[in-house]
Amino acid sequence: MPCILFAAPEAKWPAYHEALTNALAQHDIAASFVTPWQDRPADPAGIDYIIYDPEGPVRDFTPYTNARAVLSLWAGVERIVGDASITQPLCRMVDDGLERGMVEWVCGHVLRHHLDIDFFLVHQNGDWQGAQHAAPLARDRRVTVLGLGALGTAAAQALAGLGFDTCGWSRRPKQIDGVQTCHGPDGLEHVLRRADILVTILPQTPQTTGLLNHDTLAWMPEGAVVINPGRGSVLVDNDLLRALDRGHLAHATLDVFTIEPLPETHPFWAHPKITVTPHIAAQTRPDTSARVIAENIRRGEAGEPLLHLVDRAQGY
Amino acid sequence: MPCILFAAPEAKWPAYHEALTNALAQHDIAASFVTPWQDRPADPAGIDYIIYDPEGPVRDFTPYTNARAVLSLWAGVERIVGDASITQPLCRMVDDGLERGMVEWVCGHVLRHHLDIDFFLVHQNGDWQGAQHAAPLARDRRVTVLGLGALGTAAAQALAGLGFDTCGWSRRPKQIDGVQTCHGPDGLEHVLRRADILVTILPQTPQTTGLLNHDTLAWMPEGAVVINPGRGSVLVDNDLLRALDRGHLAHATLDVFTIEPLPETHPFWAHPKITVTPHIAAQTRPDTSARVIAENIRRGEAGEPLLHLVDRAQGY
Repeated sequence: MPCILFAAPEAKWPAYHEALTNALAQHDIAASFVTPWQDRPADPAGIDYIIYDPEGPVRDFTPYTNARAVLSLWAGVERIVGDASITQPLCRMVDDGLERGMVEWVCGHVLRHHLDIDFFLVHQNGDWQGAQHAAPLARDRRVTVLGLGALGTAAAQALAGLGFDTCGWSRRPKQIDGVQTCHGPDGLEHVLRRADILVTILPQTPQTTGLLNHDTLAWMPEGAVVINPGRGSVLVDNDLLRALDRGHLAHATLDVFTIEPLPETHPFWAHPKITVTPHIAAQTRPDTSARVIAENIRRGEAGEPLLHLVDRAQGY
Repeated sequence: MPCILFAAPEAKWPAYHEALTNALAQHDIAASFVTPWQDRPADPAGIDYIIYDPEGPVRDFTPYTNARAVLSLWAGVERIVGDASITQPLCRMVDDGLERGMVEWVCGHVLRHHLDIDFFLVHQNGDWQGAQHAAPLARDRRVTVLGLGALGTAAAQALAGLGFDTCGWSRRPKQIDGVQTCHGPDGLEHVLRRADILVTILPQTPQTTGLLNHDTLAWMPEGAVVINPGRGSVLVDNDLLRALDRGHLAHATLDVFTIEPLPETHPFWAHPKITVTPHIAAQTRPDTSARVIAENIRRGEAGEPLLHLVDRAQGY
């Protein structure tokens, strides 16, 4: 019977306890669970798997000498990957529910900007003629997606499915049905110059930090929109503010930030051209992510290769 | 050389003149155009085709004794179909651009309600925790589309493509890939009882007038949303207001109204649970609709059957 440490915030435990028990039962695995907040601390050497969330209470992984894997509840592992105390195999979360949530959030906000829904929400003053406000068709709206991992690829395909003239960019060459793709530093200028709406779903790495700065934002067309549900570090906050203030960019909808929670006094909150959402685009959901965790525990028990192993050299 | 009367508002003429000339040239047809506002009125008996918009200046079609077709710029023909002076074959607009516009508007507003985007737009006060607000996944959101004509079918398919648990309803049985379908009066209660979000794209006919009233709206789940980009007459205004005011329905987003333009004093404009858009969901676009008109003129000239003929008994 594997022993699993739930190294995540206590508030998440009730929903995950149920979801994990159900998901493991599908594989006929009866596990025992250990939590960091239980009265009698468990013996670290007795832990077989660690379910990990950087907002949870566990900081030092060295005592878990027999753990076969650290299974992250987060898709982005930049806060974990540099942790020298994690010597166990590290798996990130690649969850269908998380991917679908990202696709829905991205499509919703791209269509919101495409149709200028914000305009209609404030224009409810009885002026029918004044509300006439035509959008082009999606096929005449150029959308660029930066980052073509699992989430970026799914988002780009959904946007292409809605008819948008969609282009994707990644570090290395990729091919996606229905989506034009470019890659590498040379491709970046090309995809930004045609980005009426830009969606960034890049991981946080040394290469992506500050990728969208004064110089690169200036490549975007006048009146363009930035949507960032990826990682806050990709955007240089002050350069974005300047591009919005001088009217070069029309709006930014941001779900992720350099510092989270975004401080109450940060200028993004009150800016009329910025919409803040509190890191909700791609939420890890207990029912779907428990199935991913359970599959990896089944593989670990059966001696099969684990899924979604982090490449520590690449950082994701 | 066919002679074409452009019986639409004068403001539309410049864009349509160019688009029609280009579209007819694709078929090697050089046409002469006549407008109702030109200095020297043309001989009605010399008109071969009439391009018609109910907001244009032509009311009486009896003088056009040799016209081979009346080609509507509107998809909905309820304002034309009862016009006894139209004895010519009547074709409605079935335009790819109009269909794509409808699909984009419907997906945008369904996602807006699904993700509760309005909540985030007002919640920009620095309160990160207070903005935590999770949406279910689209597969756990039941959407019902009433009306499965060309526009309704395309919208239902796009919503299913986004992952929504989508059901469609029509007068007669229809089959659509990926979409559950129901039909007839008996099916209506079933599809309304499962409509977390209801999209109505029904034509205006005696059967659809007042279809959504006090009794049928009461079948919808508590907290449901109504989205109407079809025809205003389908909804009983006061019954909708009552369902919103007593909290049974959460919101209505309406693009069409019993009277258009919606009068400035109509209670819909100022209602906090109603979003008004000014009949923009499916706009006839000069470039795409001119191609449909040109194809019908080509068919008329070649003696081939016209496309999109209106069945006057059905009313659409």
